[in-house]
Amino acid sequence: MVHSSAGFEMKGNNNDNDNDNNLEEEQSGFEISVVVPKRFGRLGDDKNDCVEVLVNEFNNVGFVVDRVLGMQYEFIKLVAPEEVLGRAAAELLIKKKTKIGVDVQFEWEEAEAFVRQPDGALFSWCERFRCYHHLIYGIVNKSESGIVLRSESIEIFWEPMEPLLRKLESLGIVKEVFPLHDEVKRKQLIKRWALNWRDFTYQPIDEIYSYFGMKIATYFAFLGMYTRWVLFPAALGLTLQFVDFGASQLLVLPVFFVTIILWAVLFSQFWKRKNAAMLARWQVNYSVRDYRSKFLEMEQQSSLQSVEYKNNWTDKPKEKEVFQREEWFGRFKRLRNDAIIITSIICLQLPFELAYAHLYEIIESDIMKFLLTAAYLFIIQYFTKFGGKMSVKLIMHEKNENREHQADSLVYKVFGLYFMQSYIGIFYHALLHRNFVTLRQVLIQRLIVSEVLANLIENSVPYLKYRYRKHRAIRNRRKREKGSSTEKSQFISRVEKEYLKPSYSASVGEELEDGVFDDLLEVALQFGMIMMFACAFPPAFAFAALNNITEIRADALKLLVMLRRPIPHAAATIGAWLNIFQFLIVMAICTNCVLLMCLYDREGEWHISPGLAAILIMEHVLLIFKFGFSRIVPEEPDWVKARRMSDATHVQHIYSKQLLKSISGEKKQEQKSE
Amino acid sequence: MVHSSAGFEMKGNNNDNDNDNNLEEEQSGFEISVVVPKRFGRLGDDKNDCVEVLVNEFNNVGFVVDRVLGMQYEFIKLVAPEEVLGRAAAELLIKKKTKIGVDVQFEWEEAEAFVRQPDGALFSWCERFRCYHHLIYGIVNKSESGIVLRSESIEIFWEPMEPLLRKLESLGIVKEVFPLHDEVKRKQLIKRWALNWRDFTYQPIDEIYSYFGMKIATYFAFLGMYTRWVLFPAALGLTLQFVDFGASQLLVLPVFFVTIILWAVLFSQFWKRKNAAMLARWQVNYSVRDYRSKFLEMEQQSSLQSVEYKNNWTDKPKEKEVFQREEWFGRFKRLRNDAIIITSIICLQLPFELAYAHLYEIIESDIMKFLLTAAYLFIIQYFTKFGGKMSVKLIMHEKNENREHQADSLVYKVFGLYFMQSYIGIFYHALLHRNFVTLRQVLIQRLIVSEVLANLIENSVPYLKYRYRKHRAIRNRRKREKGSSTEKSQFISRVEKEYLKPSYSASVGEELEDGVFDDLLEVALQFGMIMMFACAFPPAFAFAALNNITEIRADALKLLVMLRRPIPHAAATIGAWLNIFQFLIVMAICTNCVLLMCLYDREGEWHISPGLAAILIMEHVLLIFKFGFSRIVPEEPDWVKARRMSDATHVQHIYSKQLLKSISGEKKQEQKSE
Repeated sequence: MVHSSAGFEMKGNNNDNDNDNNLEEEQSGFEISVVVPKRFGRLGDDKNDCVEVLVNEFNNVGFVVDRVLGMQYEFIKLVAPEEVLGRAAAELLIKKKTKIGVDVQFEWEEAEAFVRQPDGALFSWCERFRCYHHLIYGIVNKSESGIVLRSESIEIFWEPMEPLLRKLESLGIVKEVFPLHDEVKRKQLIKRWALNWRDFTYQPIDEIYSYFGMKIATYFAFLGMYTRWVLFPAALGLTLQFVDFGASQLLVLPVFFVTIILWAVLFSQFWKRKNAAMLARWQVNYSVRDYRSKFLEMEQQSSLQSVEYKNNWTDKPKEKEVFQREEWFGRFKRLRNDAIIITSIICLQLPFELAYAHLYEIIESDIMKFLLTAAYLFIIQYFTKFGGKMSVKLIMHEKNENREHQADSLVYKVFGLYFMQSYIGIFYHALLHRNFVTLRQVLIQRLIVSEVLANLIENSVPYLKYRYRKHRAIRNRRKREKGSSTEKSQFISRVEKEYLKPSYSASVGEELEDGVFDDLLEVALQFGMIMMFACAFPPAFAFAALNNITEIRADALKLLVMLRRPIPHAAATIGAWLNIFQFLIVMAICTNCVLLMCLYDREGEWHISPGLAAILIMEHVLLIFKFGFSRIVPEEPDWVKARRMSDATHVQHIYSKQLLKSISGEKKQEQKSE
Repeated sequence: MVHSSAGFEMKGNNNDNDNDNNLEEEQSGFEISVVVPKRFGRLGDDKNDCVEVLVNEFNNVGFVVDRVLGMQYEFIKLVAPEEVLGRAAAELLIKKKTKIGVDVQFEWEEAEAFVRQPDGALFSWCERFRCYHHLIYGIVNKSESGIVLRSESIEIFWEPMEPLLRKLESLGIVKEVFPLHDEVKRKQLIKRWALNWRDFTYQPIDEIYSYFGMKIATYFAFLGMYTRWVLFPAALGLTLQFVDFGASQLLVLPVFFVTIILWAVLFSQFWKRKNAAMLARWQVNYSVRDYRSKFLEMEQQSSLQSVEYKNNWTDKPKEKEVFQREEWFGRFKRLRNDAIIITSIICLQLPFELAYAHLYEIIESDIMKFLLTAAYLFIIQYFTKFGGKMSVKLIMHEKNENREHQADSLVYKVFGLYFMQSYIGIFYHALLHRNFVTLRQVLIQRLIVSEVLANLIENSVPYLKYRYRKHRAIRNRRKREKGSSTEKSQFISRVEKEYLKPSYSASVGEELEDGVFDDLLEVALQFGMIMMFACAFPPAFAFAALNNITEIRADALKLLVMLRRPIPHAAATIGAWLNIFQFLIVMAICTNCVLLMCLYDREGEWHISPGLAAILIMEHVLLIFKFGFSRIVPEEPDWVKARRMSDATHVQHIYSKQLLKSISGEKKQEQKSE
């Protein structure tokens, strides 16, 4: 099996720097595109033109370069042979799994010692992207004096050791750097995944992994497993709805309740096992249990550099004190931020949501209801946007250990916002008014309208955006052609089409999250909806199952057709979302108990003395505290962790080279003896 | 700082094989003693006498040997120079922390690279003991033919490659091998720890660690922290008892309840942090979070050998299936065993305990009550012994991953037994009869009688045992002296005194646990008692605090004076006991709520509809399931774990040597440049 990107090396060498060949474009393996403005006039001869210099530097790095002239922009497409990537990986200190099973820093000379991807490539897409990024942004002026570059009429002074691309980006000459779709694989995935309707829940997870990277593949694996598992309660819920159980009707709902809670607990635990198995298959050395500490090693090595100077402490109590003070101060700050979010949710959002629910309850006329809902939907748009931005701002001021922690923190905060928004109205109908008719109405409305409509919007908005941008680009070109009328080709090259597509980004804060955030938020909200009100409306599970089956296809199409190829991330689990699912299960236990109470106690005959109620509330609060406290204060003090981590990074520099030689030496010997 | 055992090398060479020098005995550093029967008649000349051969072999290994003639036995005392231990450690593949922070397999040649203990020794006592064990039991017949040995009149055929000590043990010639106290350190510890009454809770944990090993030091650190922390609720409880709060009296108990639950949660979390900090200080590379997986690597390397043959799997689904089948079968077996224990506790123990509690409730006469209690105490002795043995037997048939898992399993099962025994009577008084007077009586009785008496017995029984064995030994010698009358020295050598002392072993199953089990069981039962019935009897915390302050000293004296030096174990945490403490906190939340309910509802005015009660019970059961399920099914499938583990062991063989050389080379260079 030969990896595609390795195959281009030869082809690339042949048509180095040639013009775009449209027939061959589809099979090309260019992976990254750099967008620069199209220059009019003949500047190709000017050796100091910044774009020419850039292309030259790309060639020097070892990229295979292809330049495509678009309507407004010029696209410099890049692909690197395996060796160039390998050397970049070694510079980045990327750790890879070796054939003996442990992770070792990559060395190109000992590439034999490392395990290849299931698709035959040496690097996963995520690793490749990191290498490209490193190579592209690593181009600096190596001469001792500055170089004067020209772009159109401006002169640019490229100082020694200054990264060229950052400079050009800051000057607006390089518009964007984005990863390119691989047409062959993309079409294969469309056929085998997005448009494969035969098996409802089948997904080629390994192919998704090798095309989109770990984070997106994990999301789809989760969505697929959730969809398969939800079929069981869906069947159960439909049975409950349509079958009359006669005398035992009263017992049916509690049994259903217990069953779905067991189902949910089993699901969340078996998902962790499936996740662990997936990671083993993908050759990721990674224990799900301690993913936080491992993660630090995995991706955020840069953040560790700051710790490293503290390496040669032996038993300095002062350093320990500094760490402890920092730890507690950081914790206090995070707690304060959480408190701000929670109070603002309670003081601002809760009254608003309750007002809407109350108005919806008392208004009789359907038209008024419709108008009210429209106004409501309009307002919450801004509400959530504002809340999300506030969360992002607060988090940016927190001192989180790494980006993963920041992302988790954002997940919790934004979910809190959406939790209030999605469920408080339902709680209002269920608990305060005990109005189960409206409750069911609201549930159906949310499930159908919100979910299905959201899906439609989610898919149509990117398409419309794309159409609009394409239309505008063509119009702009027409205008220009009237003036200059040099080119006449009407076709739009593939790379330009991709450039016009929107990217896969989160609605809240692009800095911290990508589109997986929105998709997982949707799944989590749906899960909460069907679980927390299971007893009020058992067929909700069937809606959810149907919705998820379409969701898989819709999301797949969105990623493959509507959007640019997303930037790959190396997230090995769904992270904080799993904790949210766990939290929703606990909430579901409590809310369903209350629902059952309301359902069986229509006449209000059941009593609970206020003292007893107080004691019960106290009990629940204490239980929550008991199970939540370990999340606030970690088991390992920061200074212990920092010491462990600095040890771990220190050793990498020493042992990996030697170890590698011995591994690849061993392998070579084995091959000889075979 | 020079470690004591290193200092003997020279001294040992001078008086190699000399007779016991009583003045110098105290300062000797002999660490292990082998007990062989005293031979009468002059056999010292016989070169084939098995004891002489054994001593010769010890000398060949490199031990410094000292022979002491006791009354009935001869004691061969051994100490090894650091180099001999180091070579044994290398053979044992012991992993040690290096100066760059990572754990690497020990090599004597590169000893410079490894971190020394805080007391200056290269090896901790636990590692030393493992090395001694390895050296002593590693003596084999290296010649190609068998050797005929003689002992008194029997002839022993020592076959090639047969371990000598095992053979002699099986023939009853070597009675025992036990570690010796270090008189200097022991006296220091008695002064600074056991008899240090000035500071109530101060303990020289690091000295305890270097003298007794990690497990015992961890226990005492836990006990010390617990004692310090319990002073706060003790003060609170006493305040509640003696201060009249007037109008707010009704609010006092709930506030107390909430406070102690918060206290307990904080305590258990901060204990984990303290534990992590302790391990960092002791140079143990160990993440508290994933201690199970790390532990496998740490001590149970032997058990991994069985996994290793599966090393070169790449993606064989069959191996995976085998593993999965084994995993689920093992889990089923363990569940079945748990079910057996639980049902037998419920069907056998529960009725018995309830019968006793009921009889105690209805009997009026105090004498009858006393007799009943005596009979009860007599019977439960056998009950718990039988239960413990049954648990051990069941566990032995389980297929646990390692000894640590087995020990945990035993802890849970035996604690279940004692939980029933200790608390069910109290529950009976508290809940069924709502008889708070008897409840308090029973609590005081348990706390004073059980705890204080248990402490007395715990300490006096070993002493009485020792006195009895000493007495018997002297009597035996007198008898013999009448016959032969060769020796007349009346004194008993120190090593013989130690031999006569009992060892530090658990009352249940010596195979799996040592005495720390009993001590932690006691602490856990006390914790349960004071937490679960906190609202019924707040001053219980003061009793507990007092008891713990004496307990620390009593346990210290027991270990230092009453018992032989215990065999050290490398347990970095208190393991399953921490889970039991967590469980007891959750139980305490529930029981105290019920107690408060009973206390405030003396007139039985509070009602709860049966339907509501059913729903509440269902809720609690589901919550327990939710939080307990992850303990039954782990997050990582066995095959993934096994693969990770086999990878980890494989790499040890390859990299450690090279890494070591580079570290010690680096250090040497650094020293030169300094």
